[in-house]
Amino acid sequence: MSTLKGACIFGQSGGPTSVINSSAAGVIQEALRQDSITAVYGAAHGIKGVLDEVLYDMSKEDSYELDLLRTTPSSSLGSVRYKLKSADDDDSDYKKLLQVFKKYNVRYFFYNGGNDSMDTCNKISKYMQSSGYECRVMGVPKTIDNDLYGTDHCPGYGSAAKYISTSAMEIFLDARVYDTGMITILEIMGRNAGWLTASAALASHRGCGPDLIYLPELPFDMDKFLDEVGKIYKKTGKVIAAVSEGAKDKDGRYVAEMSSASLRKDSFGHTQLGGTASILASIVKDTFNTKVRGIEFSLMQRCAAHLASLTDVEEAYLAGQMAVRYAVEGKTDYMVAFERLPGDSYRCGIKLIKLDDVANTEKKVPLEWINKDGNGLTDDFISYALPLIQGESGPPFENGLPRFARLKKVRI
Amino acid sequence: MSTLKGACIFGQSGGPTSVINSSAAGVIQEALRQDSITAVYGAAHGIKGVLDEVLYDMSKEDSYELDLLRTTPSSSLGSVRYKLKSADDDDSDYKKLLQVFKKYNVRYFFYNGGNDSMDTCNKISKYMQSSGYECRVMGVPKTIDNDLYGTDHCPGYGSAAKYISTSAMEIFLDARVYDTGMITILEIMGRNAGWLTASAALASHRGCGPDLIYLPELPFDMDKFLDEVGKIYKKTGKVIAAVSEGAKDKDGRYVAEMSSASLRKDSFGHTQLGGTASILASIVKDTFNTKVRGIEFSLMQRCAAHLASLTDVEEAYLAGQMAVRYAVEGKTDYMVAFERLPGDSYRCGIKLIKLDDVANTEKKVPLEWINKDGNGLTDDFISYALPLIQGESGPPFENGLPRFARLKKVRI
Repeated sequence: MSTLKGACIFGQSGGPTSVINSSAAGVIQEALRQDSITAVYGAAHGIKGVLDEVLYDMSKEDSYELDLLRTTPSSSLGSVRYKLKSADDDDSDYKKLLQVFKKYNVRYFFYNGGNDSMDTCNKISKYMQSSGYECRVMGVPKTIDNDLYGTDHCPGYGSAAKYISTSAMEIFLDARVYDTGMITILEIMGRNAGWLTASAALASHRGCGPDLIYLPELPFDMDKFLDEVGKIYKKTGKVIAAVSEGAKDKDGRYVAEMSSASLRKDSFGHTQLGGTASILASIVKDTFNTKVRGIEFSLMQRCAAHLASLTDVEEAYLAGQMAVRYAVEGKTDYMVAFERLPGDSYRCGIKLIKLDDVANTEKKVPLEWINKDGNGLTDDFISYALPLIQGESGPPFENGLPRFARLKKVRI
Repeated sequence: MSTLKGACIFGQSGGPTSVINSSAAGVIQEALRQDSITAVYGAAHGIKGVLDEVLYDMSKEDSYELDLLRTTPSSSLGSVRYKLKSADDDDSDYKKLLQVFKKYNVRYFFYNGGNDSMDTCNKISKYMQSSGYECRVMGVPKTIDNDLYGTDHCPGYGSAAKYISTSAMEIFLDARVYDTGMITILEIMGRNAGWLTASAALASHRGCGPDLIYLPELPFDMDKFLDEVGKIYKKTGKVIAAVSEGAKDKDGRYVAEMSSASLRKDSFGHTQLGGTASILASIVKDTFNTKVRGIEFSLMQRCAAHLASLTDVEEAYLAGQMAVRYAVEGKTDYMVAFERLPGDSYRCGIKLIKLDDVANTEKKVPLEWINKDGNGLTDDFISYALPLIQGESGPPFENGLPRFARLKKVRI
C-alpha cells in the first residue's frame, strides 16, 4: 500500500435514484474519517462543478444531515449529463480538470453514476495518467436501470423495483374493484434493458400483479400483444400489462414513435422516450371498447425514497464507503461492484471491475429469464430480484411529511 | 333505545381509497360484537351484490385477515357505480331489495361511499320506510375528493393528501438535480373540488413543493397560467405547477377537452377526465422550449396504502365502528361525520348528519383559502389539512412486499 495524501472530489452524475445520496453519505463519511484524505469536496452538478470550480467543503456539514442523505432521494449535490469529448479531439476540458486538481491538490476522484459516468471516470483517469499527475479514480455504480456490466446488480435498482412492484400490487387491487371490464397499461422506465419492467413480475408472483410483461429485450409485436390482451380479457374481464418505455418492434420502431409526438434526443444521443402507455391505451381502447387506463410511473419510480429497499440503501452506502477504502489502499481505475456469494441465503460481496471493462457496456435481462411466450418472467428472475427489495427504508417523518437532508453547501 | 334484532348488510361503493377497507373492518368487527346483529353480510360490489344476492358471511373470515383490512387499499368486497332510479319512476330495484332484506331478515344496512352512495342510502331508507319495513340505514363517508357536505373531512382524503404531498416533495428534489431548465406539471385528481390538488401545498409549505397550484374552484386562465409559469421559469429555471384534472376555463371547457381525445361520461353522467398534464405539458413545451414533464398521479394517489396517514386509517375505522353503534342504539338515516373539536391540538369528534342533507351536495375548498393570485393556498388551508396526514400507516411487509388482506368470501 502506497500512501497518497491529498484532497478528494466526489460527484454525482446521471439520473437520480432513491439511494444515490446513500452512496454519497458512504463516500463522504468514509473520506472524512481517512487520514490520507486531507479535504472532502463535493462537486456541484458532477464534472461540471469541477470544471466551473463550484466545490463544497463537506466537512462543514452537520453530521445529522449527512446521515439523512441515506434516506434522501435524488442527487443532493446536483447531477449532470455532460459528455466529455475524447481528449484526442478536444482536450480543453481535461486541461481545466488537471488545473483544478493541481490547484486543490486533488488526489482522489470518486464519481457516482451509470454507464456514461463510468466512461467519464475512465477518460479522466487516463488523461491524468498520461499527464503524469498521480490521482486515484474510482467509480461508484448507480442506476435504476440495473444495466451496468460486471456487477450482480446496481444500487438504485432494488428501491425502484420495490416501488414498482408495490405500486403494481396496489393498482392490481384498485383495478379489480368493479365487476366491469378494465384493461390497465403500466409504462415502466428502461430504454434498452428490461430490469425495471421485469420487477413488476415480483407483484405477479404474489398473485397481485400484471398478467403480461413486455421487456425491450424482445421485439414488441402489436398483433401478438393485442391477441394476448384479448385472450385474458375475454376470460376474466381484467387485464394488467406492464410495458417498457423502450418497447420497440422488430424494425426498431419504438411504440412511443407510433404517436404524433416528435421525439427528441438527449445530449448523449439517446432518444427521449415516453408516451408508450397512452399510445397502447388508446389502441387497446379502440380494439376492445372497454375501460382502459394508461399509467406511467414516471419520476416516482426513481425517487420514491419513502419506499426504498433497506438492502439497496445499505448496499449503496457500502459501495461508496468501499470506493474510498480501496482508493486509499492504492486502487485506481475501478468501479466498485457487487457479487452474490454462494449459499442458500442472499449475501453480497464487493469486488472491483476495471473501468475499461464497464464503460458503455449495457447489461440486459438474460433471454432465458423471459418465459417462452415472451410475456413474463421465469422463477430464475424472481430468485434474482427478490433479495434486492428486502427490508423497508424511508426517511424519518416530521409532522406528517418526510424530513430530507438539507446540506449547507459551503463553497471553498 | 329500541332493540332491533336482525342481520346487517355492509357494502362498499364508488372509487377505491387507501382506507375504505379500514372502515369495512370497523363496521364488520363492531357488528360481529353486537348481540342485536344476528349476522354480518358483506355485499359483493355494493348494492349490486344485494340485488343479485351475492352476499358473504363475514363471520367466516379469519380475524387476522379482518385486521389486515385496515391497511389494505381498494374495496375488498368489490365496489360499484350503480345509480338507483327514483322509486317513483321505476321501483323494481327497490322491490328486489326489500325482498332480499325480508328473506335474510336484514335490519341494518351500512353503506360506505361518497356523494352518490349517500344518495343511494337515502333512497333505500325512504323506500323501506314507505313500505313499513323496519330497517336502520347508516352511511359511512369515504372519498379521496373530500367533498362530502357536513363533515370536517372524509376518510380517504388524508392518505391521498399524504401520498400527493410526499410524492411532490420527492419529485421536487428529482426535478432539481440538473442545472438546466425544467418545467413539471403535476395532474391531481378532483373533478370539481380542489382538495386533493390543494394538498400539494403541504409540500410547498416545507419548501419542497409546487410553485403554482391551480384548483378547479377558480376558472383556469391559460394566458395567466403561462405568464405565471414564465415568470418563475425566467427567475429560477425550474417550475413545478400542480393542476387539478378538473381545471376548466371561464366558459366551463376542461383543459382536458383541449385535446383530440374524446370525452366519455360515466353512468352518473360525469365527464371522465384525464390528460390535463400532458396537454399542459405540450403547451408549455411549445411556449418555453425547455424540458417539460407531465406527471399524472393516476390511481396511485388513491390506493397507495403503503403511505397511508395513520390518522386517516384510525378515523376511517372509527367511522365504520360508530355507524354500527349508533344504528344499534336506534339511529337511522344518518351519515357518520367528523367535527374538529376546539383546542390547540387536533382532536376529532363524531357527529351525525341527516342523509337528506348530505346527499349530492358537494363541498368545495373555501375561496378564502386560495391566495389572492389564485395560484396557491393560504396558511388556513395548511392548518386544516396538516393534522389529517399525521402518522404513518402501512401494511406489514412479507418478504419485501406488502401483505394485504385475503378474504375467503364465503357466500351465504
